[in-house]
Amino acid sequence: MFISTTDNPALAALLDKAINNKTKPLGSLGVLEVLAKQIGLIQNTREVALEQPTILVFAADHGIVAEGVSAYPQDVTWQMVENFLARGAAINVFAAQNNCELRVIDAGVNHDFGPRDGLTDRKLAHGTHNFAQQPAMSRATCEAALAAGMALAAELDGNVVGFGEMGIGNTTAAAALMHKLTGIPVAQCVGAGTGLSADGVLHKQRVIEAAVAKHTSASEPLDVLATFGGLEIAMMAGAMLKAAELRKVLLIDGFIVTSALLVAARMHPAILDYCVFSHCSDESGHQQMLAALDAKPLLQLGLRLGEGTGCALALPLLHAAVNFLNQMATFESAQVSEKSE
Amino acid sequence: MFISTTDNPALAALLDKAINNKTKPLGSLGVLEVLAKQIGLIQNTREVALEQPTILVFAADHGIVAEGVSAYPQDVTWQMVENFLARGAAINVFAAQNNCELRVIDAGVNHDFGPRDGLTDRKLAHGTHNFAQQPAMSRATCEAALAAGMALAAELDGNVVGFGEMGIGNTTAAAALMHKLTGIPVAQCVGAGTGLSADGVLHKQRVIEAAVAKHTSASEPLDVLATFGGLEIAMMAGAMLKAAELRKVLLIDGFIVTSALLVAARMHPAILDYCVFSHCSDESGHQQMLAALDAKPLLQLGLRLGEGTGCALALPLLHAAVNFLNQMATFESAQVSEKSE
Repeated sequence: MFISTTDNPALAALLDKAINNKTKPLGSLGVLEVLAKQIGLIQNTREVALEQPTILVFAADHGIVAEGVSAYPQDVTWQMVENFLARGAAINVFAAQNNCELRVIDAGVNHDFGPRDGLTDRKLAHGTHNFAQQPAMSRATCEAALAAGMALAAELDGNVVGFGEMGIGNTTAAAALMHKLTGIPVAQCVGAGTGLSADGVLHKQRVIEAAVAKHTSASEPLDVLATFGGLEIAMMAGAMLKAAELRKVLLIDGFIVTSALLVAARMHPAILDYCVFSHCSDESGHQQMLAALDAKPLLQLGLRLGEGTGCALALPLLHAAVNFLNQMATFESAQVSEKSE
Repeated sequence: MFISTTDNPALAALLDKAINNKTKPLGSLGVLEVLAKQIGLIQNTREVALEQPTILVFAADHGIVAEGVSAYPQDVTWQMVENFLARGAAINVFAAQNNCELRVIDAGVNHDFGPRDGLTDRKLAHGTHNFAQQPAMSRATCEAALAAGMALAAELDGNVVGFGEMGIGNTTAAAALMHKLTGIPVAQCVGAGTGLSADGVLHKQRVIEAAVAKHTSASEPLDVLATFGGLEIAMMAGAMLKAAELRKVLLIDGFIVTSALLVAARMHPAILDYCVFSHCSDESGHQQMLAALDAKPLLQLGLRLGEGTGCALALPLLHAAVNFLNQMATFESAQVSEKSE
């Protein structure tokens, strides 16, 4: 299923040579050079191209909000989905600016939208169970979410997929996943989410610690995902796995999206070859989660909004990487002298 | 001449309110929120708009290259100007990608181009003198360069100006300016430029230290600029001063462009209110130079190419800041519930 992109020394050498022959000092485009090479290896060609970038925004609700872990009421999940459909949210603005398609997926919002233009209905439940009391979802539901995500990714025409999410309470689920899958202490996995006070953050930490102590049997990635995850997180993980299998570029957003990738990477580590980490968010814990994946994010803008906003904002850098490789002159073609020492 | 943009508490409050009412957690767009507010204060309006962004690339040669301070031969300056005119350089690619106009200005290249489409001839000399032996330029030439830059900025239609440069040897001039204007030791101001070896960097440091010891009388910004600067650096400084006076947004690139700003800021500190720092380059010294200006760069991509490439790459973030302020829904307009605690 998964092929690491790094087992291709001939193509890697070809890409290095193409990058180094461009009219610029060696290595002077920094991270963009790394990115150009990565995209070439993902697409398995020197002729790189970004086609029809699409951001998938997965929305779902979380039973854990009953424990008072979020600064906003649960209704904000469906209200923000309405805002996405009305094109009023940050992700709408940034996706439109960067010519990126946007698909909003109802993975399990606690609201009945009915059939709606622009909304893809993959609702598996009206939110998860409260994982302080019982597993967030059954193993069967979790598998159904993964499968639904895989099917969605398989339908995409483009070769770049960004991932975004909306779900009041989902930083709590993501922090629990991070703790379980990395072993990093809960206190270092928990942040303010949409804006908890210091007391609120401490309460959130206690809720997660108690739940972790309750569900001791969950240790395999799939069990951990079912026990502590969310429907949008599971569906994202499925979409990521399929998108990588199809050799698409995966654009990873913030804390919650990275937690979905963490699950997917524990299942198939080679998925990481296909991932571009768009940014390091301000959510406490994201930096360590990225470090646990040995990920180097493109942007550090102090974002903590989710929705895939970091993906949309990083997209111009992907275009820049592809464009310099395709469009810049070489020392030879431009008759520019090379380094003299 | 210079008005600080920060003396406008009524507008600042209006902008804060507009930013905070958008459908997102408070502060969750991080640096983009700071940027949106700054652009509003520069443009002196809540109705922000970016019009016709233009990058000015100033090119000139440097007599100091006779001391062996660059990894590339001097001819690369004019060859790269030809590359700009043929649209083969990185800045051409990135400017085109981001719908940014590009103007190439010959401030003092050691080559006769003749009249050429796309090249603005403001040549004041065929390069500077070797400042290891004598001041790089006379005070009169330096003033002429500043005036030429001011005239160029006054001609621009748009309200966003990026600054870029090309000039073999100009990191040596910039490092000398940095040392003289900040007092930071030469060793911390000097970097590898286009790719010097460690020995080459040490030699460059010795050349600057000897020149500084020779020209002890230069201490005022204008004298320092004339003694150690370059024609492209002086012309940029003039263009920056005029652009800020006209309340344009100034997009600052890497080490050399920042050194021109350092000179301008020593003349008129309020210019900094108008500056957006596009990136922190990999050229050793840039980070400290930015810190000396209390500047927070948008991007950290390990770039060290110059040409204004960082400006072009940061431009989408300026658009994102303006677009979220102009296009996002408010909590009220989208009927989204506000924070509950």
